[in-house]
Amino acid sequence: MSGLSGMPGRLFGIGVGPGDPDLMSVKAARLISQTSTVAYFAALNHPSIARGVAEHLLTSTHREIRIDYPLTVERVAPDDPAYEQLLVGCYDAAARRIETELVQGHDVAVLCEGDPFFYGSYMYVHNRLACRFETTVVPGIPSLVAGAAAISRPLACGNEVLSVLSGVLSVPELTNALATCDAAVIIKLGRNLARVQQAVAAANLLERAVYIEHASSANQACCPLAQADSSRAPYFSMVVIPSAAAGRR
Amino acid sequence: MSGLSGMPGRLFGIGVGPGDPDLMSVKAARLISQTSTVAYFAALNHPSIARGVAEHLLTSTHREIRIDYPLTVERVAPDDPAYEQLLVGCYDAAARRIETELVQGHDVAVLCEGDPFFYGSYMYVHNRLACRFETTVVPGIPSLVAGAAAISRPLACGNEVLSVLSGVLSVPELTNALATCDAAVIIKLGRNLARVQQAVAAANLLERAVYIEHASSANQACCPLAQADSSRAPYFSMVVIPSAAAGRR
Repeated sequence: MSGLSGMPGRLFGIGVGPGDPDLMSVKAARLISQTSTVAYFAALNHPSIARGVAEHLLTSTHREIRIDYPLTVERVAPDDPAYEQLLVGCYDAAARRIETELVQGHDVAVLCEGDPFFYGSYMYVHNRLACRFETTVVPGIPSLVAGAAAISRPLACGNEVLSVLSGVLSVPELTNALATCDAAVIIKLGRNLARVQQAVAAANLLERAVYIEHASSANQACCPLAQADSSRAPYFSMVVIPSAAAGRR
Repeated sequence: MSGLSGMPGRLFGIGVGPGDPDLMSVKAARLISQTSTVAYFAALNHPSIARGVAEHLLTSTHREIRIDYPLTVERVAPDDPAYEQLLVGCYDAAARRIETELVQGHDVAVLCEGDPFFYGSYMYVHNRLACRFETTVVPGIPSLVAGAAAISRPLACGNEVLSVLSGVLSVPELTNALATCDAAVIIKLGRNLARVQQAVAAANLLERAVYIEHASSANQACCPLAQADSSRAPYFSMVVIPSAAAGRR
């Protein structure tokens, strides 16, 4: 789909799911195949995870826009004002590159790990462009349900409160949040894992907590959170604290 | 896939996604096509929603197991002990029917709206059978991300706390839970909608809250929560209170 009619292109925010290419939706796969330009975020000097999931659909006729994050939290602390400024600059530049394609009449599919609106970077492109270009968001399977499937444990049931928490939160913030829910998923682990282990232990939930990396991918791995090696957790790993009640009915 | 080798069949818990058949994963679609027996839950005297999503994949060669819920909350109050007893009996009977297929060597795919482990009935079948039969859970797109896509609003970002709440909770329970998160999705509305409106208003979140029914389906509809008609909300509708911060970066 590439417009030669003078009409601007359309923007698609496409969730490619948690990692297994087969867990992409039929709609996502079709749109990626048919869209002339694909864009994706990537960590500096690393292959793009979202592109990897969709790689089997990309051909030499696709135009590709790779958007490098300017940094990771490993290099600049998130509370340094420079961090926020660099990120905003990255999103501004990404939106400008995508806009150039759209103005030329090319449809653009932004590939997003998991779901585009679930803690993803696509939202910053969306907020800059959706008001001016025809835009469709295609939801994807977010990592939290892939994590539950990976450990074969129901996530939440009945009238339970399920909370999604970030591993970047402080130990007291995490411990308090864990006290007010029945089941939880903690994302964005990476170098935060030791702190997360501390918070889960303080909330007396260590027995139920499972550490999962690369859920649904070929290199999927799980272990009890207490046994997870906090020195080597990838950022895209998670802790699942499944419902204690789901087995009881 | 139907075993004639004397081997028992395999159990698949398959998330068919939020409603649009095109939002089913490639893996789910393939497994449903290839599995000899499909099972699904349905409200008494109503078509099964999960079966409806997968209908285009079913042929006359599929064996079908329809599991009727014995009642709805409209007829027996959830706090009546009879309610729990009837549900447990329903799950026991469902597991027995599926077990009979598995023992005869037929693979069985249980079709689940959204994701099998995200507040779904499949978990009760899983808990009864997964210990004895080879079992695979295929995650699906849960309604919450389809809701965010429907209203074109990012759900949560950065280090925000996102909570999933049940509309069955009391007004104080809902109001308290809403006070401890940055973004929320309230599921299981139905006749609870008026109470949910009251709780969201008490939490001062009415301006941000959107009511969505049948997200991703042909009859999808959305409106500000304050304008939603509480006398006619289907059970499978939801309220999304998206992140206030996602637009700011």
